[in-house]
Amino acid sequence: MDVLARNNVRLSGSGREAIVFAHGFGCDSNMWRYVAPVFEDRYRVVLFDNVGAGKSDLTAYSFEKYGSLEGYAHDLIEIVDALSMTKVVFVGHSVSSMVGLIAARKRTDLFKSLIMVGPSPCYVDDGDYVGGFTAAQIDELLEFLDANHLGWSGAMAPVIMGNPDRPELGDELAASFCRTDPAIAKHFARTTFLSDTRELLTDFSIPTLVLQCSSDVIAPVTVGEYVHEKLNNSTLVVMKATGHCPNLSAPEETVAAIDAFLRTAR
Amino acid sequence: MDVLARNNVRLSGSGREAIVFAHGFGCDSNMWRYVAPVFEDRYRVVLFDNVGAGKSDLTAYSFEKYGSLEGYAHDLIEIVDALSMTKVVFVGHSVSSMVGLIAARKRTDLFKSLIMVGPSPCYVDDGDYVGGFTAAQIDELLEFLDANHLGWSGAMAPVIMGNPDRPELGDELAASFCRTDPAIAKHFARTTFLSDTRELLTDFSIPTLVLQCSSDVIAPVTVGEYVHEKLNNSTLVVMKATGHCPNLSAPEETVAAIDAFLRTAR
Repeated sequence: MDVLARNNVRLSGSGREAIVFAHGFGCDSNMWRYVAPVFEDRYRVVLFDNVGAGKSDLTAYSFEKYGSLEGYAHDLIEIVDALSMTKVVFVGHSVSSMVGLIAARKRTDLFKSLIMVGPSPCYVDDGDYVGGFTAAQIDELLEFLDANHLGWSGAMAPVIMGNPDRPELGDELAASFCRTDPAIAKHFARTTFLSDTRELLTDFSIPTLVLQCSSDVIAPVTVGEYVHEKLNNSTLVVMKATGHCPNLSAPEETVAAIDAFLRTAR
Repeated sequence: MDVLARNNVRLSGSGREAIVFAHGFGCDSNMWRYVAPVFEDRYRVVLFDNVGAGKSDLTAYSFEKYGSLEGYAHDLIEIVDALSMTKVVFVGHSVSSMVGLIAARKRTDLFKSLIMVGPSPCYVDDGDYVGGFTAAQIDELLEFLDANHLGWSGAMAPVIMGNPDRPELGDELAASFCRTDPAIAKHFARTTFLSDTRELLTDFSIPTLVLQCSSDVIAPVTVGEYVHEKLNNSTLVVMKATGHCPNLSAPEETVAAIDAFLRTAR
């Protein structure tokens, strides 16, 4: 099996170290177009699409494998291995933050540091833990998506993006959601919003940057703080940027925060 | 050792198959800028710089290793292996055609087909074999380069490029020659112009396109015909393009010839 073709892996830039960017739910590697190129003068930059997204090989989609985040973590490990890389910097957006965590726990040799953009280890409130959604809200969200993929995409994307003063951002995300195969979108949404990776945060010591937006309905500040508290070796940066996609809405601030972290985490 | 960093490997495009472009003496992967992108809609496109060229890791240069084309072939094999690829299409310009041949003989599993742009297995006339230069001319050429790197670059580049009606092409090649580290340029010139890989052409059956310019002082038409005659499974295309660098001087014709070969060689 050809891992690099399956995940539409692209490699640009020059440098001794590599930085790997992973996109979130309903998106593809295009989400990194304002961020990734900035690192090309110092890093080899790896972009890829999750199976089911972008220009990945849709025939490789498996409802069993991708029914848990483990399936995506397995692919991430295969990609880094297929590129014969070790000790990469990993940048994950949203659910892919946790995919990176799962992969890094399995193969510490492959990851030098993690950068989590808007991570959430659990979207559902649970006792003292505030994920931001009740179980009923998540069920409702998934039922709405099951019933009306395009309607859900148009309604949810602007909410997830935030930044209502720049409606083109929400429009882009809505279009990205709509482009996703409906069956895959519904399945990935379920895999994402029902995931609970909280216990994986403990006993994890690879340097990690938690990049938190100051107003994000998908991953509220309390969630970023929780992630930061549980990790052994993390830095929490709460950005001025709002919404769940600072890579698109505030690329300069996102780049600056990643850059500062990379320069100190050597 | 990090092969992908050493050779400044970049990967773009999407597709089931991969196409690898290798540049010639005194150049770098930039020589493929009009050709390689055309294949990105159907192939994964691999670009790299030879050690000693472009943005490669100069500290990896070894006068022993790169004293023969075998050293470059070794690196090519390592690059394809490092990308976990097999059965790639290889496009080599000038001396890199022969590097591809050496690599493909060692590892037939890695190469689906070869495209040789302006190949020459031997630059020096030898009995019935007409390489285009007498042994004395090659010695003179290397002595001139040893004595005056910049002068040689300025004088030879326009001759190699041909197309005197477009002096900017020769200027670009001269600038590329001048950018090369003088010690490495002198060494690579010696490795190139004193190479004799004629015996490697026999018993080679991987489909090969010999792309020959109609007026090329470095690799005359008789040399392309010789390569074609010796190979078991080759196609000879004599282009209207003149000079030794059709990838720069006649990219449309170069792309069209490669494309036609790839569509029939499936």
